[in-house]
Formats: sequence, structure tokens, C-alpha cells
Amino acid sequence: MSATLYQLQRDHIQALNHAYQARMAAHNLDSLAIYSGHANNHFADDHATSFQSYGHFIHWVGMADVQHSWLVIQPHQRPQLYLYAPADFWHLPTQLPEEPWVAEFDVHLCSDKITPPLTGRAAVIGDLKELANTTPLANVATLHPEGLVRELDELRMVKSAYEVACLREANRLAIAGHQAANAAFIGASAELDVQLAYLGASRQRESDVPYQNIIGLNEHAGVLHYQRYDLSAPKRRYSLLVDAGRRFRGYCADITRTYAGPDAPSEFGELISAMHGLKDELITQIVPGIEFLTLHEQMHRGLADILVSHGLYQGSAESAVETGVTRAFCPHGLGHSLGIQVHDVAGLRQPDGSPSPAPDTHPALRLTRTLQAGMVITIEPGLYFIPMLLAPLRKKPHPIDWTLVDRLAVCGGIRIEDNILVTEGGPENLTL
Amino acid sequence: MSATLYQLQRDHIQALNHAYQARMAAHNLDSLAIYSGHANNHFADDHATSFQSYGHFIHWVGMADVQHSWLVIQPHQRPQLYLYAPADFWHLPTQLPEEPWVAEFDVHLCSDKITPPLTGRAAVIGDLKELANTTPLANVATLHPEGLVRELDELRMVKSAYEVACLREANRLAIAGHQAANAAFIGASAELDVQLAYLGASRQRESDVPYQNIIGLNEHAGVLHYQRYDLSAPKRRYSLLVDAGRRFRGYCADITRTYAGPDAPSEFGELISAMHGLKDELITQIVPGIEFLTLHEQMHRGLADILVSHGLYQGSAESAVETGVTRAFCPHGLGHSLGIQVHDVAGLRQPDGSPSPAPDTHPALRLTRTLQAGMVITIEPGLYFIPMLLAPLRKKPHPIDWTLVDRLAVCGGIRIEDNILVTEGGPENLTL
Repeated sequence: MSATLYQLQRDHIQALNHAYQARMAAHNLDSLAIYSGHANNHFADDHATSFQSYGHFIHWVGMADVQHSWLVIQPHQRPQLYLYAPADFWHLPTQLPEEPWVAEFDVHLCSDKITPPLTGRAAVIGDLKELANTTPLANVATLHPEGLVRELDELRMVKSAYEVACLREANRLAIAGHQAANAAFIGASAELDVQLAYLGASRQRESDVPYQNIIGLNEHAGVLHYQRYDLSAPKRRYSLLVDAGRRFRGYCADITRTYAGPDAPSEFGELISAMHGLKDELITQIVPGIEFLTLHEQMHRGLADILVSHGLYQGSAESAVETGVTRAFCPHGLGHSLGIQVHDVAGLRQPDGSPSPAPDTHPALRLTRTLQAGMVITIEPGLYFIPMLLAPLRKKPHPIDWTLVDRLAVCGGIRIEDNILVTEGGPENLTL
Repeated sequence: MSATLYQLQRDHIQALNHAYQARMAAHNLDSLAIYSGHANNHFADDHATSFQSYGHFIHWVGMADVQHSWLVIQPHQRPQLYLYAPADFWHLPTQLPEEPWVAEFDVHLCSDKITPPLTGRAAVIGDLKELANTTPLANVATLHPEGLVRELDELRMVKSAYEVACLREANRLAIAGHQAANAAFIGASAELDVQLAYLGASRQRESDVPYQNIIGLNEHAGVLHYQRYDLSAPKRRYSLLVDAGRRFRGYCADITRTYAGPDAPSEFGELISAMHGLKDELITQIVPGIEFLTLHEQMHRGLADILVSHGLYQGSAESAVETGVTRAFCPHGLGHSLGIQVHDVAGLRQPDGSPSPAPDTHPALRLTRTLQAGMVITIEPGLYFIPMLLAPLRKKPHPIDWTLVDRLAVCGGIRIEDNILVTEGGPENLTL
């Protein structure tokens, strides 16, 4: 890692300490302890499920797999990091990296699972179930105060220069994976082998991915959160959709590409090109002050234009939007906030923490905010042939070319997704 | 899958129904419901942790990733399977395979998360936390009665012909992975790439492995449950230890191999050969009626012979065992029961369910039972150079060749592990 990134990380931690101190003062708190979380075993077994540290813990330390550890923030103090690192010949012990940002913390290596020392009026944030079951906290502690947690969520909405650098690096690594996945598809690989090619080129194991990669061949490209990897390749190869990411210091890339296979109808490749164009066009609209919902509605208008210009819809673009046709072809939202979590916190809240749910007409939207400089969001227009959603349209006299739809159905669908930083000077595409 | 395996599975389910009915009668139960379990999300996130269905559920249906589903057993009835399979365009719906064993169940496909209908005196087994939080069960139900659960655990200790066939197939698939891992090691791969080669050849993704594969290069071979995969290959390659499995219909293979690299001292390769010999010799001792602890003690005597014959220990083999030297070179148990779980249930109980803990002298032993025909166990002798365990020996005048130990320490250690079926006719090695 470059000296510059280390310096950015020090600045990030110092700014975070400032911001936390202000919020603790407003809540009249003398101590705030953030728990890392810990893995639990599968039921009635001695093997653990997969694990990721709690987001607010990662926000400070940039390590996504630390367990049984604590961060304690107190007024006018350096942050105290209690890192669980027992002497244990069964496992490789947790170690702090030898990097300059570590000097921003007072580090305590703990051979036991501890309860952090808290003084005065204290609050603890973390999983209430875990805290109640495993940690004998002093009675003075307020467990996971919702108001404060929302303010800390809000701190994560606008990214520091360090966070943007991490998101850019996560994108760089993920792009290498996408290139390898495409090569594996050209080589007629099964879904499992496309996934392994992706992991190898992006240098990560499956249990470290920020979300389970979606690797869908043919109709599987139309299952929005397709969750399996077939072990054998289909005889005919129409399409591949890869929605796959990478973590870097806890920060997530989330990129989607769709490819036409050798057996695809020619219209499918043309639709993929058009969706790339729609994605790029939507990105140019990103400026501080715009409502994300407005962009989402622009996606539907752009999608309608594509349906019309490619002969799928033989009415006006306006009517395709108004009659809900575009929503049947794309049931998900245009994108979401991106950071330590793939669907990052506070996307469905106002800046003051009050709820801002998705509108009834677009229930799957994960981001309802006014964009501001420093936010990082995904832009991911989609166009799918999902039988369950198209069936109701078939019962009404919509001007849809069902012959063409049925011919394209074997391709499943298309999604193209980039990760964008909002700046005063315009959008900055982290995926390029 | 062969017609024979289907037939064996039908026999297995019928025998299981018989055995359950007898135990339910003894407990005066009219209904027994087994919950599949379900995945939980990471804390404060919308992505789920890894998941495996509850073992007693898999025992019947052979599917390791079914969620929110129920199996209900009642006297003189066919088992009722309530399979959660909602209409959902976000995910690929759960489907029952079109296989003849399914006809042994009355299958109910459920679009909602249900509470199963229970009549009379009923018991429910599953994760109490989940059952209490998510499922409004009738007051009549006894939740997870420990006595009955132990009897059902005991049913899993002796394997049916179907279960043995599954374990054999899991081994066949895992062996292909081990061969690919060895080839990747010869090709100077990093730990991550050895892992990906293993997964590709054994046809599985990481979240389906029965336990996290241990892929340790050099000193990492001496970390018993080494849990990371380095992204780059070390400059010098002394050793590789691969402890890696495969599930087949829920049943686990658990195989370990160790390889000497091009930079290893010649003694390391000779020690690997000797440990293969010790593993084979211990397997020949397996007969119904022998105590597993006896075999474990024989491992320590065999290990002492190897330490002496290879010049690591310059006293008598007897004294190496008596003074605890062999336990410092191998701190884990000789093996464990194997089945639906890698460390299968009831290994530390007597057949009547009473506790049978590991002796103080061998605290890591996971199996303390008298072997009987039909049990499947691992045999996994080890020899490691673990600084934390050797340090106390250095402080006493043990006749250990520390120069040789220190030269071998870069190799980490050796473990060789096969999976063995106990039969009246002798041991049957499923790993060959």
C-alpha cells in the first residue's frame, strides 16, 4: 500500500475521532464502546458460519474479520483498541499490521475475551443478542442506542478521501476478476468455473467476498439474486451475467457485466450495447442536489426508449412507462449507496435520521436520498425476461412483440453496473 | 446417481422411520417435528451468513441447504415434508429432485414460512433461539428434548449402507481435489490458488465445503486449524498440508495429505513416508470391540518409534511417550466420527447417551467410544514442529536433536488422514 493511502487513513481516523467526539458530547456520553462481533457456530455443530465485523468497527480499523474485539472512544483521548489475539496453536493469531495508521490507536492485545473498561456515562454498540449473551457489561452501559447509531450511520454516507481510495482499489481488483470471468465464459466454462476464475483473478476467497457473487448462465441471468453455481456447462450458451465484487480494507466493489454467448440471438448483443449506453447516460446526470429517485425514473424512460427502438415494445415510450411495462422488465432499483456494506447504511433515511422509505411505485429502491458530494453509489440499469413478471402483461393487450421476447427469454436478462463517486465537478466513475 | 443408491436411500429412510417410531413410542410422543434451520443475516446488514441445515433434518432428506422447512414424524404415518419453496423471482426456488426416494415422503411445497401442524403430545427439535424467536409453536410442544436428541444422535453413529455409499462418493470427489492441489503445489501456486484448484477439481464452492479447507504452505502446515489463504507464494517452498473435504448428499469426506516441496530438507520427505506407514498400520488395527483410545495410544507409540528412528529423539521410544514428548509433537486426537457433520455427533458419549469425555491426558480427543461395525471414523496421525508446544521441552534435558528440529521447523508439520468404515471383516478404507 502506498504512503499516500496510509496518510489518507490517518486523516480519516483523526476526522472520525473528531466527528465521534462531537456526537458523544451531544449525547452527553463519557465512553462509547464498539464491538467487533464474533462468528457463531452452525447449530449443534463445532464449525462456525461465515463472519464479517460490524460496520462501525470496520469504519475505524479497516479490518473486516476481527472478532471478540472492542474499540473504545472517550473525550479528548486517543481511541483504545482492544484486539483479541490469544496465544493459540490451533489458529493463526490475529495480528495488527505494521502500518503507520496503527499509531493513531492505543492498542491492547488481549489473550482473553474481555469486557472493555468504561467510565462515566457509557454506551455500547453492537449486536444486542451477542452482547446480552456473551458479555457481562456494567449496568451503566446503554446498549445500542438507536438515535446515536443513526448518526454514526450518517457519518458513513459521505466518504473520506481514504474511503474513496479503498473503493477505487476494490474496483481495480474486481475488474481483473470480471475480465477473467469473461475469458472463462468464452472458454465454455460452467458457472462454478467462471466463479473460480473470478476469485483467482480478483485474489480472494469466497468467504471474503462482500456479497455472494451472482454468476448466471442463460436463464439464470434473469434470476436477480441467483444463488447457485451449476457444476456443468449448458450445451448452448446464450448469455452470462456476472455481478461480483471485492473488498479492500472492508470497502466493497459491486460491479455487474453481461455478455452475449455464441448461441444468443443477435438482438441480445445489441440490447447489451444499448444498456451500456443507458448506464453511461445516467451517470452523466449525476450531480450534487439531484434526487436519486429522479435518476431511477430516468432509467425507466431510457429503458422504454430501448424497448421501443429494439422492437420489443410497439407503442410509445411514454406508455411503456405509464402502464408499468418497464417495471416488469426491470423490477429492481437503479442502485444503492456503497461503502463498508454493499447496500450501505442510511440509504432509506433522511440526513437527520428520519425514515425515507421507497415509494410504493418503486418498492425495491434502496436509495431515496438527495445526492451530495462524497457519496458513492451504484448505477445498475437492468432489462430482464422474467416469466413470473411478464405473465400478467401477457393477459392484457400491451403492444409487446412476444415472439421476440420469447426468443430472448433463453438469455435471462442484462444488468450493467458501475460504482460512481459524486463530486461537485461531476460524476467520477470508480469502475473505469 | 445409480439406481442402487436410490434403492439404498429408500431402505435408509424406511429404517429411519422405524427407528424414530420406536423412540417416539418410548417417549410417548404423537408428533415429532424437525426444523431445517435457516440462515441469519450478518449484524446490521442485509446479507446472510453461510448456512447448513440441521443434521437430523439432513439425516432424512439428504439436502444440506434447505431452509425454513419442516419434517414431521407421526406413528404409523409416512413422514411429512413441508418444504419452503416460495414463488420468488429474486432467487432460484428450492425444488425437490425428481428421484424415487422422494416418494417415501408426503411432500408439501409451502409458499410461506409455516408452523407445522402437530397433534397430540408433540416435540420439536431445532435451534431453540430460532424456534423461540421466529416460530409461534403450540404450547403443547416440547422444545428440543435433550434425552430424545441424544437417542437420535446415537442413530447417526452407525451408518446405513446408503450413508456409507454417500461417504464413499464424497471421498472419491475429494480425492480428485487433493490430486489437483498437489499439482498446483508442484506449479508453485499460492495458498489461494491451491484452494481454488482443489475446489475446481472436487466440483464445489467454498460455501458448500463441510469444513473450511486447511491449505498451509511451510510453517502454516504446523497451524492445526490454519484459517487463511495467502495470496502470494513464498519464495522457498518447503511443504504443503491440505486438509480438505467434500459433501455428498450432506455426508462429509475429511482427508489430509502433506507434501514435501523442492526446498525441504530430505528428512521431511522421509518423515512423510513414515507417517503414511503409521496411518496404514493403525488402520489395520481397527476391529469392532476395540477402544478408540487404545488406537490413539498406539499412535503415540508409533510416533515415538518414528521420532527415534529418524533421529529426532535420542532416547527410548517408551520414554518419549512417558515424558509427554510425543504429545508436544502431536497435540490432537487420532480421529473422530464422520458423517453428516465432520466431527459427527455422539463421539464423546456412551451408547446410552451418558457423557464420555476425553481423558485429561488426551484432552483434544473427539472420540472415546468402543468401535462397532458400521461406524465411520477418521485416522489422522500427525507430527508437527509447533514452537509454542516445543518451547517447554527445550527447558528440560530431553534427548531431542534440536538442530534437526529447528531445520525441519520451516516445514510446519505433517498430517495424513483417511476415512475408515469399521466392519466385522475388518477396516474398509473409503479414501482409497
